[in-house]
Amino acid sequence: MAATVEEVVRNKRVILREYVSGFPKESDMFISFSPVSLKIPSNHKGVVLVKNLYLSCDPYMRLRMRNDQDPEFCPFTPGSPMTGFGVAKILDSTHHGFEEGDYVWGTTGWEEYSFIARPERLFKIRHTEVPLSYYAGILGMPGMTACAGFYEVCSPKRGEYVFVSAASSAVGQLVGQLAKLGGCYVVGSAGSSQKVQLLKERFGFDDAFNYKDEHDLEATLKRYFPEGIDIYFENVGGKMLDAVLMNMRVHGRIAMCGMISQYNLEQPQGPKNLMSLIYRRIRMEGFVVFDYCHLYSKFLDMMLPLIREERITYMEDIVEGLVNAPAALIGIFSGQSMGKKMVRVAPE
Amino acid sequence: MAATVEEVVRNKRVILREYVSGFPKESDMFISFSPVSLKIPSNHKGVVLVKNLYLSCDPYMRLRMRNDQDPEFCPFTPGSPMTGFGVAKILDSTHHGFEEGDYVWGTTGWEEYSFIARPERLFKIRHTEVPLSYYAGILGMPGMTACAGFYEVCSPKRGEYVFVSAASSAVGQLVGQLAKLGGCYVVGSAGSSQKVQLLKERFGFDDAFNYKDEHDLEATLKRYFPEGIDIYFENVGGKMLDAVLMNMRVHGRIAMCGMISQYNLEQPQGPKNLMSLIYRRIRMEGFVVFDYCHLYSKFLDMMLPLIREERITYMEDIVEGLVNAPAALIGIFSGQSMGKKMVRVAPE
Repeated sequence: MAATVEEVVRNKRVILREYVSGFPKESDMFISFSPVSLKIPSNHKGVVLVKNLYLSCDPYMRLRMRNDQDPEFCPFTPGSPMTGFGVAKILDSTHHGFEEGDYVWGTTGWEEYSFIARPERLFKIRHTEVPLSYYAGILGMPGMTACAGFYEVCSPKRGEYVFVSAASSAVGQLVGQLAKLGGCYVVGSAGSSQKVQLLKERFGFDDAFNYKDEHDLEATLKRYFPEGIDIYFENVGGKMLDAVLMNMRVHGRIAMCGMISQYNLEQPQGPKNLMSLIYRRIRMEGFVVFDYCHLYSKFLDMMLPLIREERITYMEDIVEGLVNAPAALIGIFSGQSMGKKMVRVAPE
Repeated sequence: MAATVEEVVRNKRVILREYVSGFPKESDMFISFSPVSLKIPSNHKGVVLVKNLYLSCDPYMRLRMRNDQDPEFCPFTPGSPMTGFGVAKILDSTHHGFEEGDYVWGTTGWEEYSFIARPERLFKIRHTEVPLSYYAGILGMPGMTACAGFYEVCSPKRGEYVFVSAASSAVGQLVGQLAKLGGCYVVGSAGSSQKVQLLKERFGFDDAFNYKDEHDLEATLKRYFPEGIDIYFENVGGKMLDAVLMNMRVHGRIAMCGMISQYNLEQPQGPKNLMSLIYRRIRMEGFVVFDYCHLYSKFLDMMLPLIREERITYMEDIVEGLVNAPAALIGIFSGQSMGKKMVRVAPE
């Protein structure tokens, strides 16, 4: 009996207070503690208990903080811990596919320890020669999103003109690099001069601009793309999408990954220039990464050598401690972070 | 010399007065006359002179009556005859591909006689066992538009749920019938109870509704498509598109053929629900029929037997005389016409 008592620890958790309208604040979340047993009760079959190591802060989480969005993206439950992508270590398992000590990535709780009811949805981490944090970024959901969106949705060809918005983001920085590797001409937009510098100097974008310095985005894009845009990787929506629609080339493709400019608005800004889709025979296609899980091992086969040979780079922005997770998440909406924002919950 | 004089006749023409903003009026066009020689001067090589028989009234022509749209759809020239699709008979030819007496369809002038500078863009009519008017409708541009949009853009599968707006239009009536032939469930919207009856009774739509009777289009579509919409054939834009976006199924497809509700507006209504493209992984694709000309003979091979076997029907609305062409064109914007509106310029 003494052993059982010792296994119960305090579990720090990030709780969503209420559904959020407008710009989210740190105080929309709070930290709470609850006891957790580090042993799975023997009658719970097919589950795992994990210790969370890294939690990923992603724009789509803002949508789960409201309850007026599509049920496809299930809203968080106020009063309960938030969930998101993360990297974790298996502490206990009653699932035949996992054993103590395994590293995994996938959907977990915003807390120190999580029970995962359907561990078959987790990805087991087999390549630990790269930092584990990579599985919350370049080798996790954002990396897969960049690849699926760029290769599967955009159908890129060498020599094409590619525009990426929110280009220094977790996904954007990779899309730009993949486009360069594929022989495309790539321009990115971001919200500060440091980010613009990063895009050009570290990620190898052909050019980049700070959208906050531009008053007429349609004219800006005409300047950066005198021949027009073949591929737009859409991360922001709103005015940028309208400007892009006026600069697309015939038979262009728009991969709709996200529209972060719209997430805090009650009434979204509809694009006025949708007729361009017809005039210029444009394909605009939304996607979510979950549809491409079957391609994960192919993705790893491509990415691991690129990382090893330093042909691709990835910028992380790691915040220490779960207590700082709410601020980290809010930071991605105010444009403060450079690179992939994540929280280190515990040392590896 | 006497013979030459006899060949000069009076050519009745429909002229665009000025570019049009707001709802177009008959008086935005006027009839003028100019002399035309019915013989091509011998130094004009590679051209044809045609006598126009049928002229097609099409929604996209409204866009050519303004000069603030995409240059891809070249605007008409005020003071000059309008142009459009039509059926014509060759009166004289200096092009090796055409001879006197041939019937053709393609882009011609809104006038009795037209010189066609690039006749290689015309389609020669080889099947005259069907009425010649069909080549301004079911076997011409609207028919090709329906087929290209439905088969090439929508990628339909048996059992899918299809919604067609402006469903009794030149294109819509065919899309619905093609969808039924392909084993889909099809609902159409139109702007009068007679049109709704037509859709259900003559064109075989599974169901149809009058959008003017509906106050909450999102709820209406939920009622007609409790399982959601797989394919939307977009002819109208605006509020209907927003309502559709909230009723699409995961991996749905939207073929953007036109957005007639927007053509008379200075500021288009942008759809608010574009995030649905992401949530539901929707492909929204604009197309124009010109990109599919290479498929025309394949299209005829499919359509001619369907017409012969009466497995497909087509409703025409033929107005007599070029003098009535302006009113006929205006009529399609006020929703007056039932079926494919065209003008008979001269007897066959």
